[in-house]
Amino acid sequence: MSEMMDSSAAHHAFLGDEIVARINALGAISETPEHLARVFLTREHRAAADLILSWMRSAGMQAHLDAIGNVCGRYEGEVAGLPCLMLGSHYDTVRGAGKWDGPLGLLTAISCVADLNRRGRRLPFAIEVTGFADEEGVRFASTLLGSRAVAGTFVESVLGTRDEAGVSMREAMLQFGLDPDHIGAAARAPSELLAYLELHIEQGPVLEKLNLPVGVVSAIAGATRLAASLTGMAGHAGTVPMVLRRDALAGAAECIVEIEEFCRTDEDGLVGTVGYIHAMPGATNVIPGEVSFTIDIRAPTDAHRKLAVTDIVRRIENIAKRRKLSLQIDVTHENRTVPCAPWLKSQVAEAIAREGFRVFELPSGAGHDGMAMIDIADIGMIFVRCRGGISHHPDEHVETSDADAGARVLLRLIENFRPRGAAGGAS
Amino acid sequence: MSEMMDSSAAHHAFLGDEIVARINALGAISETPEHLARVFLTREHRAAADLILSWMRSAGMQAHLDAIGNVCGRYEGEVAGLPCLMLGSHYDTVRGAGKWDGPLGLLTAISCVADLNRRGRRLPFAIEVTGFADEEGVRFASTLLGSRAVAGTFVESVLGTRDEAGVSMREAMLQFGLDPDHIGAAARAPSELLAYLELHIEQGPVLEKLNLPVGVVSAIAGATRLAASLTGMAGHAGTVPMVLRRDALAGAAECIVEIEEFCRTDEDGLVGTVGYIHAMPGATNVIPGEVSFTIDIRAPTDAHRKLAVTDIVRRIENIAKRRKLSLQIDVTHENRTVPCAPWLKSQVAEAIAREGFRVFELPSGAGHDGMAMIDIADIGMIFVRCRGGISHHPDEHVETSDADAGARVLLRLIENFRPRGAAGGAS
Repeated sequence: MSEMMDSSAAHHAFLGDEIVARINALGAISETPEHLARVFLTREHRAAADLILSWMRSAGMQAHLDAIGNVCGRYEGEVAGLPCLMLGSHYDTVRGAGKWDGPLGLLTAISCVADLNRRGRRLPFAIEVTGFADEEGVRFASTLLGSRAVAGTFVESVLGTRDEAGVSMREAMLQFGLDPDHIGAAARAPSELLAYLELHIEQGPVLEKLNLPVGVVSAIAGATRLAASLTGMAGHAGTVPMVLRRDALAGAAECIVEIEEFCRTDEDGLVGTVGYIHAMPGATNVIPGEVSFTIDIRAPTDAHRKLAVTDIVRRIENIAKRRKLSLQIDVTHENRTVPCAPWLKSQVAEAIAREGFRVFELPSGAGHDGMAMIDIADIGMIFVRCRGGISHHPDEHVETSDADAGARVLLRLIENFRPRGAAGGAS
Repeated sequence: MSEMMDSSAAHHAFLGDEIVARINALGAISETPEHLARVFLTREHRAAADLILSWMRSAGMQAHLDAIGNVCGRYEGEVAGLPCLMLGSHYDTVRGAGKWDGPLGLLTAISCVADLNRRGRRLPFAIEVTGFADEEGVRFASTLLGSRAVAGTFVESVLGTRDEAGVSMREAMLQFGLDPDHIGAAARAPSELLAYLELHIEQGPVLEKLNLPVGVVSAIAGATRLAASLTGMAGHAGTVPMVLRRDALAGAAECIVEIEEFCRTDEDGLVGTVGYIHAMPGATNVIPGEVSFTIDIRAPTDAHRKLAVTDIVRRIENIAKRRKLSLQIDVTHENRTVPCAPWLKSQVAEAIAREGFRVFELPSGAGHDGMAMIDIADIGMIFVRCRGGISHHPDEHVETSDADAGARVLLRLIENFRPRGAAGGAS
């Protein structure tokens, strides 16, 4: 058999079953049986890491836990010590999570390496697979901790942050068996990486609407998060006539309706969400005197998002003024749009086309580890369709055939990978 | 001096200072120094009761704690054992309360009796002053516990209710030193009472707007409370296009704006309040999948309120249907309108007019112990102006001159009181 035939045979190996079985095994490691929750530096983090390290080793990789708790596997190339193509995703979850967000990309990468290893196939570069220990930021309210440590951009001051139980990240690391003074050891040099590639569920309904199993990610959309607080005057629900009220919750409700309407009538993919609200004092028979809420705004381009944020803030200011409510509004978080590298996008597109699927490019509305990894490498992403676009919810689901399609695309991409600036492959 | 002159002199005694000094003393008895909170069957309840009992005794009353923890004082009439005119209000508070809501009526009644006692004045009926131990219902979510016990309508099953710490009312009563199996001993027979009269702060801005220190209460407005829950679909804030969302919080916000608008455009005193809201899962970057909120609706007549509730529920149903949200909406609490007895209203009006104030009649939008007491006696109420209409808030305030005006009206009313059906006085 020619090598061409070998390679083609590899694309017909069905990896979906192994990936789904492992998704289920990992999905059973949770802080409570009622819902899936696996957060940073917990017993579940440890149990999940041990299981993933064992899968990496059986795939022929050298594997270890790094200084922040990421799982790191390395599959050497034709000779030892070559720069690597890094594949990865995260293995922490939100609370009440689905099983696929994060683990699908990590386990698909391991299955692809296992397939290469079974065939004794070595490439002119190493492959590394990284499972990031904290992307969601559930425990310490600071996201991308794992990939920031790898990118060398971990901010030391975050170690002082405390979780809801009052445990600092520094204390939690010590309890876990990690040394908070040596997080720097997790950092990788740009020269070690040829690129960072991540496969992830879409977490949205676009591929499903188009009946496509996979898509090329164009960019990770930037996001602005705001914290707003409206203060009026608390009062008795029975004694203050409507015209004399300064009801902070009625004001906040008008803002929420306005934000929704503003985004709904935008034609360029703007989305705006009020996910959290708290009304004080919060009693049935008391007019709320103070309400705080969050606003999350995302758009495919930074310019569009910034314009939208300005417009929305102005509308909220007008509502507050008309209702005689005092307003405090602050940007709490801002991520710029992170583009996927054109040379990687074209290799992803090529692999998708060769697997027989229509190539469709879409932005990622969700954040991903690539937002940190771009500081040390060009990034590329593959999206896999998920049912109903549902994510961060127990109903999150990927069909086994789609998991397999994602694996076939990733494996073809790996086997045909050309570093930036290298002579082109098929075209 | 003729008795006529004596009586006139009494009306010039300045009771405001004593009342305000005692309001401040009672206002210092709180579960925390940061804000005023004095709830049922606590150490603070006990300390407040002891202080009030001492004031009752120094006013010449026999005083005791009854079977539910109410403070009860009795000032005999011309002969011992006559039926009584009962005066009263409550001495528990909400959390973050003002000092005046409840205590003003109780302490004014005690000061009026003290004034009669100083003058050796006995009337052809006894006077009783009752301080109700629980009107607000903060601890066990069930209101009017003190006055229900006196009216003989205390519901035994409430004893099983637990507070936030998991302590049942039965356990709390035992810890306080009361016997939960003998609450019935607090009940009074209708034949013992000539009427129940309560002075209370208005808790609304109407008297202030009219520049009047006191008002005649026409009725205690009925209230309907509803619990609503909207369920849509949680989703990632970045990945679900606006048109595909079923955002439960955006739906709830539209309901809140609609309720406000519906009540605001009513011309007959309808008020509607959403005081509590909870959005789940409540994360900045997740579209809320479920939102629960409360609705409190009050109107001067039962017919108007019921019509309004039906209309509001229909509007909420329409919003839920259009947004493809499932709706659960239930009535959790309903109080009928409790009218003040015409014969008592006219005696209150007469006392106000004789003190030189314009007589103005207004409904009470807030609930009061009279709602329970009406089961054993005709009820009457006097409102005293409070600053800005603010209540259930630390800024709750009554001017000393208004506290005194209230005391003068109450004292004149007591001294000229004619039981129902008795031959008229001045007119």
